[in-house]
Amino acid sequence: MNYQQIIEDIYEEVKPLLGKGKVADYIPALAKVDPNEFAITVADLEGNKYHVGNFEQKFSIQSISKVYTFAVAFSHLGDSIWQRVGREPSGNPFNSLVQLEKEDGIPRNPFINAGALVITDMLFDVLKEPRADILQFIIGLTGDSSIDFDKEVATSERENGYRNAALANFLRSHNNINYDIEEVLNLYFCHCSITMNTNELANSFLFLANGGVNPLNNERILSLSQTKRLNALMMTCGAYDEAGDFAFRVGMPGKSGVGGGIAAVIPGELAIAVWSPALNAKGNSLAGVQALELFTTKTGKSVF
Amino acid sequence: MNYQQIIEDIYEEVKPLLGKGKVADYIPALAKVDPNEFAITVADLEGNKYHVGNFEQKFSIQSISKVYTFAVAFSHLGDSIWQRVGREPSGNPFNSLVQLEKEDGIPRNPFINAGALVITDMLFDVLKEPRADILQFIIGLTGDSSIDFDKEVATSERENGYRNAALANFLRSHNNINYDIEEVLNLYFCHCSITMNTNELANSFLFLANGGVNPLNNERILSLSQTKRLNALMMTCGAYDEAGDFAFRVGMPGKSGVGGGIAAVIPGELAIAVWSPALNAKGNSLAGVQALELFTTKTGKSVF
Amino acid sequence: MNYQQIIEDIYEEVKPLLGKGKVADYIPALAKVDPNEFAITVADLEGNKYHVGNFEQKFSIQSISKVYTFAVAFSHLGDSIWQRVGREPSGNPFNSLVQLEKEDGIPRNPFINAGALVITDMLFDVLKEPRADILQFIIGLTGDSSIDFDKEVATSERENGYRNAALANFLRSHNNINYDIEEVLNLYFCHCSITMNTNELANSFLFLANGGVNPLNNERILSLSQTKRLNALMMTCGAYDEAGDFAFRVGMPGKSGVGGGIAAVIPGELAIAVWSPALNAKGNSLAGVQALELFTTKTGKSVF
Amino acid sequence: MNYQQIIEDIYEEVKPLLGKGKVADYIPALAKVDPNEFAITVADLEGNKYHVGNFEQKFSIQSISKVYTFAVAFSHLGDSIWQRVGREPSGNPFNSLVQLEKEDGIPRNPFINAGALVITDMLFDVLKEPRADILQFIIGLTGDSSIDFDKEVATSERENGYRNAALANFLRSHNNINYDIEEVLNLYFCHCSITMNTNELANSFLFLANGGVNPLNNERILSLSQTKRLNALMMTCGAYDEAGDFAFRVGMPGKSGVGGGIAAVIPGELAIAVWSPALNAKGNSLAGVQALELFTTKTGKSVF
Repeated sequence: MNYQQIIEDIYEEVKPLLGKGKVADYIPALAKVDPNEFAITVADLEGNKYHVGNFEQKFSIQSISKVYTFAVAFSHLGDSIWQRVGREPSGNPFNSLVQLEKEDGIPRNPFINAGALVITDMLFDVLKEPRADILQFIIGLTGDSSIDFDKEVATSERENGYRNAALANFLRSHNNINYDIEEVLNLYFCHCSITMNTNELANSFLFLANGGVNPLNNERILSLSQTKRLNALMMTCGAYDEAGDFAFRVGMPGKSGVGGGIAAVIPGELAIAVWSPALNAKGNSLAGVQALELFTTKTGKSVF
Repeated sequence: MNYQQIIEDIYEEVKPLLGKGKVADYIPALAKVDPNEFAITVADLEGNKYHVGNFEQKFSIQSISKVYTFAVAFSHLGDSIWQRVGREPSGNPFNSLVQLEKEDGIPRNPFINAGALVITDMLFDVLKEPRADILQFIIGLTGDSSIDFDKEVATSERENGYRNAALANFLRSHNNINYDIEEVLNLYFCHCSITMNTNELANSFLFLANGGVNPLNNERILSLSQTKRLNALMMTCGAYDEAGDFAFRVGMPGKSGVGGGIAAVIPGELAIAVWSPALNAKGNSLAGVQALELFTTKTGKSVF
Repeated sequence: MNYQQIIEDIYEEVKPLLGKGKVADYIPALAKVDPNEFAITVADLEGNKYHVGNFEQKFSIQSISKVYTFAVAFSHLGDSIWQRVGREPSGNPFNSLVQLEKEDGIPRNPFINAGALVITDMLFDVLKEPRADILQFIIGLTGDSSIDFDKEVATSERENGYRNAALANFLRSHNNINYDIEEVLNLYFCHCSITMNTNELANSFLFLANGGVNPLNNERILSLSQTKRLNALMMTCGAYDEAGDFAFRVGMPGKSGVGGGIAAVIPGELAIAVWSPALNAKGNSLAGVQALELFTTKTGKSVF
Repeated sequence: MNYQQIIEDIYEEVKPLLGKGKVADYIPALAKVDPNEFAITVADLEGNKYHVGNFEQKFSIQSISKVYTFAVAFSHLGDSIWQRVGREPSGNPFNSLVQLEKEDGIPRNPFINAGALVITDMLFDVLKEPRADILQFIIGLTGDSSIDFDKEVATSERENGYRNAALANFLRSHNNINYDIEEVLNLYFCHCSITMNTNELANSFLFLANGGVNPLNNERILSLSQTKRLNALMMTCGAYDEAGDFAFRVGMPGKSGVGGGIAAVIPGELAIAVWSPALNAKGNSLAGVQALELFTTKTGKSVF
């Protein structure tokens, strides 16, 4: 299927939404992004790419990085990771401490902040150079060696990251962080600060549409079963406390970030990435979610 | 694909699990069911049926009835139903009052008890004879006019249903129940008491695999878009507080009941129903979930 | 000490507050009360009475009735009542379901609605005619046989009392209500509907300042130890989720009602009742709390 | 009144309880204390002292220190402190994060850990040498210059204090900690580590029985009104989530610590300190609470 016309139509339809919503402003580096930015890239398994908008403009991927760190931890540790993190939707704002207290320091899933901190802690067990290795993992998925951290963002996040520091200390009090809290937080914020454009994001998610195999080099990253399970996790937990609504409206497994990016897949077919920095009340890209809903409506494709 | 051998293999593999877990015992009529019962029916869109186990034995469908009542309300009221009920996973035991209090009497989704009570209340707006009409709806989906309520179960549920009565009163205090509380509760328990076997259950779910059209008579029940959305709801909210785990392990949209039944679909292909009365700690059929996980593993089919 | 001048000064000082706040309006019978009403009665153990304002005007005592029903249950059942109700402040709005769910149906204390419903249920065990007997109990404390229920208020409360019905059903689901839910609710609302004036209220609380003995007839109602304990309960739990603030500002054990009345005692000395119908955000009489704070400030008397 | 015989009788009566309960063991320095230790000191306003048990043995005062830091902050800042901390009982375990999240980072009262951290933060505003100045404050109350920190305990607490570090970071994320988190935590643990015996504890609380004036030197520490209010706070919030029960059984304003100490007062009369290291399930000295209950029962004295 040729997606070019479809995504151009989508771009036209969502234009009235651009700038609606609110750009994340808890750190200056994010607050200064133009709320009217927009881009879509579709990458299918036959190697085609389709783009609209500012698809070469890099932005902060933020929580989308949790997919990469989870994939790496899952590939090394397998189902043993479920001893330290659950796989249920949280039913609460993404950085809530309440559920964590009730459930003895086991975060509900790897995509809420607490869960991602536990996964980050695991990376010290399985990677020699966790910071560089995750970057190499993403570079390997995209074939683009220019992908890098944004040190200004990482530093700024760390300096203002009291809630995440609270989470890390709380997890440690439940013996669910093993390494030095400062190092875990620094690594976490480092990964969140990675900048990518929609082209790179879509490429990097293709292995999730391809049964776990990187289509660039046919290297297996996850088993087929693990890949399906990561997709299931994204479906039920990938959009903060709006995961149900995202599944309902969009019907694709995907992961969003407060930088305004969303990446999603249709297994066996394609990966799609959208970007628009202004967020809805639940912290997901307002125009981005709408664009994805239009995509599944117009193509008739979704997992359901 | 011929599923007969696959489901026979599954039966053999899950036999050691039969009787593990705990049959629902909060009312006598459910407690007396043999925990070793087991059945699977697969119904595909080409009209084939495959069975193992005691597939002609009727059992109490309980919460699976919430799919039928939701489908009927959704078909009549469309997206206006979302003013009175949400579509997010609950992250809490299925009959919890906590979330409800926090969120001003709007249940998180139509498949938790509070949400199903609100949907039941809506049925009085759109059906002349809500009790009989839901039964006719199911009979129309299965072509089997023998399907009926179990009055003993309905009466017993009502007599012990203090938590649901609490929910109904609480919803009413938030103006989210409009009809007489006793009538709403009676209707709710009536639908939960319907008995079906796996053959009937699988048939009744085929329209969800068939884009919203009843394959028996080509009657459209829901639009394609509504069908996908109901499937999405089942994926994120269909298995109580184990929905994430169910999506992770099984990868099909489905709905479970405390009678030990589970019905699920692979869109475009098939519906499957399993039954085994002994439940796991989250209230889902222990052997049933395992059987469904084996089914997607062995067939390589799932939505992910 | 002659309190007449003191309470007259207080009346002058609180006049600017009259009508500030909000009269309870969840039922019409309460909503129609003039928000500018005000009265104080002080009754000391030497038999003196001091009044200002409209002290002969009867009003709905509402939750103040929980002191009478608790006193009667405590006198009959002693410490066995603590098997069904706690004695800790609730830290939550007075009719919250959350804590109740977390703590398995044992209300935190007898003065939140759930706890008072459990106490009401106990009355059926110990009184032949719970409705009339509680009235006789109050008449015995005041010597005033004109005290009666307000049937309009009781009926209106019952018709709108969905939250309390939810609580009662929820308590029943935890086996902490033994009698018919409707009868328990009717009795509960009946007691809440009793109308009294500040003169009667102050007289009725004198036994709590008098070591448990009714000063009118020297009849012992509670032992000294029980009396101290009831006073302690009022101190920590008597003012909804403002009990800490009430203890801090006023320093007397007391109990408030949404009709705008508050009754309090200084053990060994006196009882005081105030009435002003406009409530603060926590549901306590705005001018009433201020008047009591001024009373302890001006007299230098408080338990601390 | 001569209290010597009374406290000797109490000692005999509570002996069977000694060693029941559980010594705090979250740090080694506390875990090694003999669970059978016991002491009482009564100090009245006429200058008499009465002792039983090991009243010269120092122990870790832990949360009792919150009374001293609060008194110092309150004396300097007056009612402005209520902008940053509440005065309601918490209805939750003493170091819970839940309430804090719900109430936007304003701890419910100064005696839960979160509230004490905020008070500690305030000390940097009002004291030149917060660590030494608090010690001098206590030395001034007792006339005993040997009172000191236990560095081993303070260090050990800090090294294991992840929950308190979580609280401090969480409070900071709500802008309710202004100074460096590490410094605030170190100061907090420092004060908690102070060791005193029951004689010193009782003496140090005498100003709370004496209207705010240190009886040793007639220096006013708090106004009469502030003193009554601090006593009210101890009554409603001084015994963790057992404050209601403590008020009910003991009827005196008091403050407990996990070192097994409890100090309490009867305004206008006396201060009393008890120590027994084995704690009940709520974290209060098991034999200590019983001893205080016997004291108010035997003397007939309590504030109620």
